[in-house]
Amino acid sequence: MMLNKIGREIPNKVQGFGEIKPYNGPFAEVKMGNVYGRKVKRVKPNDSKMLESIEEAIKKTGLKDGMTISFHHHFREGDYILNMVIDAIAKMGIKNLTLASSSLNNVHASLVKYIKDGVITSITTSGLRGTLADEISNGLMENPVIIRSHGGRARAIECGDIKMDVAFLGVPSCDNYGNANGYNGKSFCGSLGYAKIDAKYAENVVLITDNLVPYPNVPASISQTDVDYIVQVEAIGNPQGIVSGATRYTKNPKELLIAKYAAKVIEASGYLVDGFSMQTGSGGAALAVARFIKQSMIEKNIKASFVLGGVTGQLVEMYEEGLVDKILDVQSFDLRAAKSIKDNLGHCEIDASLYANPFNRGSVVNLLDFVILSALEVDTDFNVNVITGSDGVIRGASGGHCDTAAGAKMSMIVCPLIRGRIPTIVDKVTTVITPGETIDVVVTDRGVAVNPLRQDIIQKLSNTNIPIFTIEELKNKAESITGKPEKIEFTDRVVGLVEYRDGTIIDVIKQVK
Amino acid sequence: MMLNKIGREIPNKVQGFGEIKPYNGPFAEVKMGNVYGRKVKRVKPNDSKMLESIEEAIKKTGLKDGMTISFHHHFREGDYILNMVIDAIAKMGIKNLTLASSSLNNVHASLVKYIKDGVITSITTSGLRGTLADEISNGLMENPVIIRSHGGRARAIECGDIKMDVAFLGVPSCDNYGNANGYNGKSFCGSLGYAKIDAKYAENVVLITDNLVPYPNVPASISQTDVDYIVQVEAIGNPQGIVSGATRYTKNPKELLIAKYAAKVIEASGYLVDGFSMQTGSGGAALAVARFIKQSMIEKNIKASFVLGGVTGQLVEMYEEGLVDKILDVQSFDLRAAKSIKDNLGHCEIDASLYANPFNRGSVVNLLDFVILSALEVDTDFNVNVITGSDGVIRGASGGHCDTAAGAKMSMIVCPLIRGRIPTIVDKVTTVITPGETIDVVVTDRGVAVNPLRQDIIQKLSNTNIPIFTIEELKNKAESITGKPEKIEFTDRVVGLVEYRDGTIIDVIKQVK
Repeated sequence: MMLNKIGREIPNKVQGFGEIKPYNGPFAEVKMGNVYGRKVKRVKPNDSKMLESIEEAIKKTGLKDGMTISFHHHFREGDYILNMVIDAIAKMGIKNLTLASSSLNNVHASLVKYIKDGVITSITTSGLRGTLADEISNGLMENPVIIRSHGGRARAIECGDIKMDVAFLGVPSCDNYGNANGYNGKSFCGSLGYAKIDAKYAENVVLITDNLVPYPNVPASISQTDVDYIVQVEAIGNPQGIVSGATRYTKNPKELLIAKYAAKVIEASGYLVDGFSMQTGSGGAALAVARFIKQSMIEKNIKASFVLGGVTGQLVEMYEEGLVDKILDVQSFDLRAAKSIKDNLGHCEIDASLYANPFNRGSVVNLLDFVILSALEVDTDFNVNVITGSDGVIRGASGGHCDTAAGAKMSMIVCPLIRGRIPTIVDKVTTVITPGETIDVVVTDRGVAVNPLRQDIIQKLSNTNIPIFTIEELKNKAESITGKPEKIEFTDRVVGLVEYRDGTIIDVIKQVK
Repeated sequence: MMLNKIGREIPNKVQGFGEIKPYNGPFAEVKMGNVYGRKVKRVKPNDSKMLESIEEAIKKTGLKDGMTISFHHHFREGDYILNMVIDAIAKMGIKNLTLASSSLNNVHASLVKYIKDGVITSITTSGLRGTLADEISNGLMENPVIIRSHGGRARAIECGDIKMDVAFLGVPSCDNYGNANGYNGKSFCGSLGYAKIDAKYAENVVLITDNLVPYPNVPASISQTDVDYIVQVEAIGNPQGIVSGATRYTKNPKELLIAKYAAKVIEASGYLVDGFSMQTGSGGAALAVARFIKQSMIEKNIKASFVLGGVTGQLVEMYEEGLVDKILDVQSFDLRAAKSIKDNLGHCEIDASLYANPFNRGSVVNLLDFVILSALEVDTDFNVNVITGSDGVIRGASGGHCDTAAGAKMSMIVCPLIRGRIPTIVDKVTTVITPGETIDVVVTDRGVAVNPLRQDIIQKLSNTNIPIFTIEELKNKAESITGKPEKIEFTDRVVGLVEYRDGTIIDVIKQVK
């Protein structure tokens, strides 16, 4: 055991993981080495890429025990691909695979069975939800799950930490040579931002589509030069499923109050000027802030140079009203956004590396003026948990949380002071996803705390009527209502390893008792 | 010395070049190894990429003696960048550089001085023209020039045969973080198809622009994630210069006759059906063929699925008239094409690897129905020379000639039987760029020859009034007019190495006497 920079206990060695480097600050790690280069392949003029079935694709790629397979999560709860492919793999008797999905959702509960059967023995993902998450928190897997942020996953792939043997990528529109996009076809999902990276680095790339279109299907999000095989199936996903619970519009008065305070902070911060940029996150309060910002923009007659992130219909509306110059979209959060990427020239698909990879020549998060993020817990060091619930069980995703917090000029958490009888502001979060030194402001319905590292923001807010407190004061407020929360009981067994975006380990998740 | 498959003498070793593999057939070479991965770099949130001058960029990249620098040729005779950068390099006293340009033109004659001074000691390029070409043919350089096709250069870069230390890339539109395109700004050149590859693989990428625009300049042809530095200068190129002599429209009756025969062959070949694809090349006769094809398409009421290549206004016109579904553009040959790439959604920029790299998962040339190509010479083995003139001096470019010939279902050469008093059809071409086994039809003003390997085409043409001859008959016809051409006298010294697209050596160019 060792302690990392933020005082978290990190094991020296974890089964199924290479060298463990403890987190040491958001920009402390200096990655050496080269970008991963996969094997050179050749497709000759008369070669066909079309295969009859998933089974044939599994055979042709040479998938075998011990390899790594990857998937994207652009269909979210509407995804048919992952279950379809792993069913086929299991039937063929292949075992001991590493699953390197960009994320996993409730819809992937059948993985529990395949983990028990030894088909899947390691997982890396941004998040876990539902039955699968419960089971893993209760010790289902021998190897801990590796939780990676979206930027961190892109980094891990580009730097060769994740080596994908076969990527199985569902694409809503594809020609017979592999030019594909996400915005045409009955199963459209919009951006293919995560899938683009898998297509570039996996040793074998299999596209699975329910919408084969004439060649050349260009401009393409995934290019023929990256694709080995194509399989046509009945249906790859349900577009209705791409609207995750995360993107709901709030009528909750507490969330609206949080949003109002947040908007005031942004206003006072000086970042809301013509040409500003933002990411608004997908929580209820975060989405409500964007509505206040929009009002403010109209009043001040200013325009955003770009909005970033998981993109919602709300941002599309602002673009179409001329309030936003460009939308940079790594994933489309709802159907309106998914459609817009086809129709609006300034709504641009970006891949996960361009979005948030800390080890390229500059990702877009570096240029963010501010980001509005949710939290399950924030502690008095400003560390944020978005992965484990108040019972210690995994129920969320790392997403772009730590990426945008590190990149943006001002990173803001919006959260209620308490949820039910559970405080949100605590002494020590259960699991750290985002280190406090990259969090600038915490906005709750009972007041706002600014990280003492940001005296400039404290100064700017001092002449406003925003209720400012220290983070300790907020914590005390919360505890005065809820009482001191009971400690969650964990075993000593590590079931999850939380990687910071730079590849260091910022925290571990332990098995719940 | 050894003989390659087409009987050309290839040296066993050449100064400044690695292992020499003789050409052994268009698909014989099986490249192993991995895609090249350059060093991982990081740009942090507050880092600036803007530099004051070319000199500062040279310093910051750490360019030093013995390194490799790269440039693109999208401005053709209007290019200001290469001279500007090498002037600065020379002034700083850096020597012994390898120049890895996508191509070189008359405008780069000042290189002669820098070669003499030892600033540039090796060159790889698609072509050479003018004074520089003359001097090199006369023995200017100690190391032979490596001639690579456009697809071959992309392959060499992706496979790590060309390792570029610094790419200096002129871009007509760029933001301060490196998102760039070729179609906006006073110096617009259209597609940046060759530059895109350099940006992805060079260790250091410097963009030079005369048109700095607000962030984010997306969609981008070159992405911020690939760019280290940006320098703003007065002017990067003259758009008038991008119309090379190669794209003239012909009124020459001989060329029109060739075009007429070529159109008849295409018609009879069975490839001119709805959904066909073509590349038309840039010679006078080749362009004239396209006009006949257009007429035929209108009459038959058919549409092309795509046209490929160096793109001319003529193809844009066909697209705008609804005759062509997609234009795939690796370089824009004239201003109309350069503008269209901005205005027409179906006019898509493609990079050189997607265009023609034989060692990726399938480049577009693989999907071509037919290609129309020029020739300086064709021999009775159907080998084609597009690089050395009748005096043996370098005066052309490899371009996409051998790439498209290998990929297309039917590759057709259009050329006059004789030029002045010089025969075009000869016993043995001076230099082989494209091997005869990938050439299907040769069309001259005096008749057409079909490669005996293509009995299917011979069969199809047999019931037409097209004047068909054997290639020997065409050669004899030519010689009956011109007499047997005098042999060009060369020394034994190799001044150029002609690489086939797969990295093998198909021929050498010797110093003229």
